Amino acid sequence: MKTFYSAKHALHHPPVELAEGAFVECFEKPERAYYVLQSLQDRKIGPVCEPESFGLETILNTHDPRLVEFLQEAQQNWTALGKAGTIFPTVFCAQNFNAKEPKSFLGKLGYFIGDGCVPITPTTWDAVQSSAFVALSAQKAMMAGEKSVFALCRPPGHHASARLAAGYCYLNNAAIAAQAFIGQGAKRVAILDVDYHHGNGTQDIFYDRDDVLFLSIHADPAVDYPFFLGYEDEKGAGKGEGFNINYALPHGTEYDAWSSALDESLDKIRAYAPDFVIISLGVDTFRGDPISKFRLESDHFLDMGARIAGLKMPTMFVMEGGYAVAEVGLNATNVLAGFKDKAA
Amino acid sequence: MKTFYSAKHALHHPPVELAEGAFVECFEKPERAYYVLQSLQDRKIGPVCEPESFGLETILNTHDPRLVEFLQEAQQNWTALGKAGTIFPTVFCAQNFNAKEPKSFLGKLGYFIGDGCVPITPTTWDAVQSSAFVALSAQKAMMAGEKSVFALCRPPGHHASARLAAGYCYLNNAAIAAQAFIGQGAKRVAILDVDYHHGNGTQDIFYDRDDVLFLSIHADPAVDYPFFLGYEDEKGAGKGEGFNINYALPHGTEYDAWSSALDESLDKIRAYAPDFVIISLGVDTFRGDPISKFRLESDHFLDMGARIAGLKMPTMFVMEGGYAVAEVGLNATNVLAGFKDKAA
Repeated sequence: MKTFYSAKHALHHPPVELAEGAFVECFEKPERAYYVLQSLQDRKIGPVCEPESFGLETILNTHDPRLVEFLQEAQQNWTALGKAGTIFPTVFCAQNFNAKEPKSFLGKLGYFIGDGCVPITPTTWDAVQSSAFVALSAQKAMMAGEKSVFALCRPPGHHASARLAAGYCYLNNAAIAAQAFIGQGAKRVAILDVDYHHGNGTQDIFYDRDDVLFLSIHADPAVDYPFFLGYEDEKGAGKGEGFNINYALPHGTEYDAWSSALDESLDKIRAYAPDFVIISLGVDTFRGDPISKFRLESDHFLDMGARIAGLKMPTMFVMEGGYAVAEVGLNATNVLAGFKDKAA
Repeated sequence: MKTFYSAKHALHHPPVELAEGAFVECFEKPERAYYVLQSLQDRKIGPVCEPESFGLETILNTHDPRLVEFLQEAQQNWTALGKAGTIFPTVFCAQNFNAKEPKSFLGKLGYFIGDGCVPITPTTWDAVQSSAFVALSAQKAMMAGEKSVFALCRPPGHHASARLAAGYCYLNNAAIAAQAFIGQGAKRVAILDVDYHHGNGTQDIFYDRDDVLFLSIHADPAVDYPFFLGYEDEKGAGKGEGFNINYALPHGTEYDAWSSALDESLDKIRAYAPDFVIISLGVDTFRGDPISKFRLESDHFLDMGARIAGLKMPTMFVMEGGYAVAEVGLNATNVLAGFKDKAA
């Protein structure tokens, strides 16, 4: 299985994030990708390829173009205000989502950012764009006939909605890849999000569409981030009704219960018969994850990969979360290795 | 003119707020109220009275009861999480305002708070409740026949909407007073908000009602806080259509332009013929205000008071913003003195 990876992810390394009321060291840091890369190479999962560059067209078809412009211009606008250092929003568009876009950059910060976990540094955009190119390169390889590919994206993407960056995510890499598949002729794409946190951005982007089936297995939003989306009664809207499926599981969930939701998800994907499957691969379901509360063991990730391989469908993995830095490599590559062994 | 004031406001004195991307010293601090009180006494504006205590009924008829419960229980829930120090939200309900209320306290923080300017300390609720009682005591005095009263509220209230605390505001003192007037038989109440910032909370609370006319003269939200409400095309909804009036003025506005909007507002209030007028009295329109960009001089506040007195209506003043600490006393009491002299 080919992996796409760009060293440019390390251009995004903010010193702190705003979480639980304080500036704390970032959980989403470059080491995450290094550990995964190292583990991939040690276990000979397959070649590691540089991504190509792409135009912004698919990104602009997935996201509100104003978000893209905002991210590109954030640093120069911050500097123009006489500010230095990492950019954090402190006002949010909580009262009126349908507001006009403010002219003030301080207002724009709240218009395009949903929480304190998406700091912006002078080189963040380069890393964000490169992460999207990693996803698009993997998607291109799939279109060219690969049966499975791994996009080692960083920063991750699944909390980014059409207009809002949030939760370590700036652009939604999995959604951009899905949009590219559709744009290049795929009739149906399924995105299965196995990250501990609900893929609220991905859900939001495809909520009213039937050409992308979105399924997410995650912590109940009543008790964990992102808190405001991810309930099981969110089933899609309009043409998309029935094409959004959430499994909201309690804190402390073990692999037995988790894998039941996985099996049900895989059945639904079979019934949907997509041309391509995208796995939003977070491994923060791991028992040792510092910010999550499920109880998967490292070996379970091997089994997870094998079950996904049971679909026998063209499958693209996109890296999302996972914060137990030392084990994030082992767990992510376990999914890929389990998939590969079963698919072989 | 009687003033109602409680020393309990000083129970709210968080060390910092989150503004423009960093923790900075609070602009909304106890000294503000001390300066106003001192100036009132020096200039013999009238007796200073202690507020009474009230039940929570009127507050619960104005706000979402869950916000009140959240504010009351915030400290114990924060402590239960093993946290110490001032409470700040870092996740916000920006994507889905109509979400269910999370069970997680970290989720509730984002459900009930709209930005980084409403820190919560262990004694914040006592000050917030006392500020509402100051407004209700002033309202009671008006009902008892006073022709004008000043509620020296702190913390201020006009950015607090039914469910969201924001912008230094936890409960909306002016809205609570208006609701009390209506509850006690008033047919119509007009609220005129002269604070530099749009009274987005007050607008939101009464947006679909015709028994409270809301008018606000403020900085264009495209260029200043609260950014997402306060445009002139927001005119009310349903039965409330036509009963919400915004004057959104540019940075640099001088008193000539400002007072034209005031005169127009006063004409609209005359046409509405309310039983009571409430002035949301922010004096951050002052040229020297550290966070605002209008250019009113101290003497203009005398004229502002005199023009308001020209209504010849029962008028209750409720303190909102104003951050040039040394001058906030002079400017606020200038409004009251100008009113008093003209009304005499």
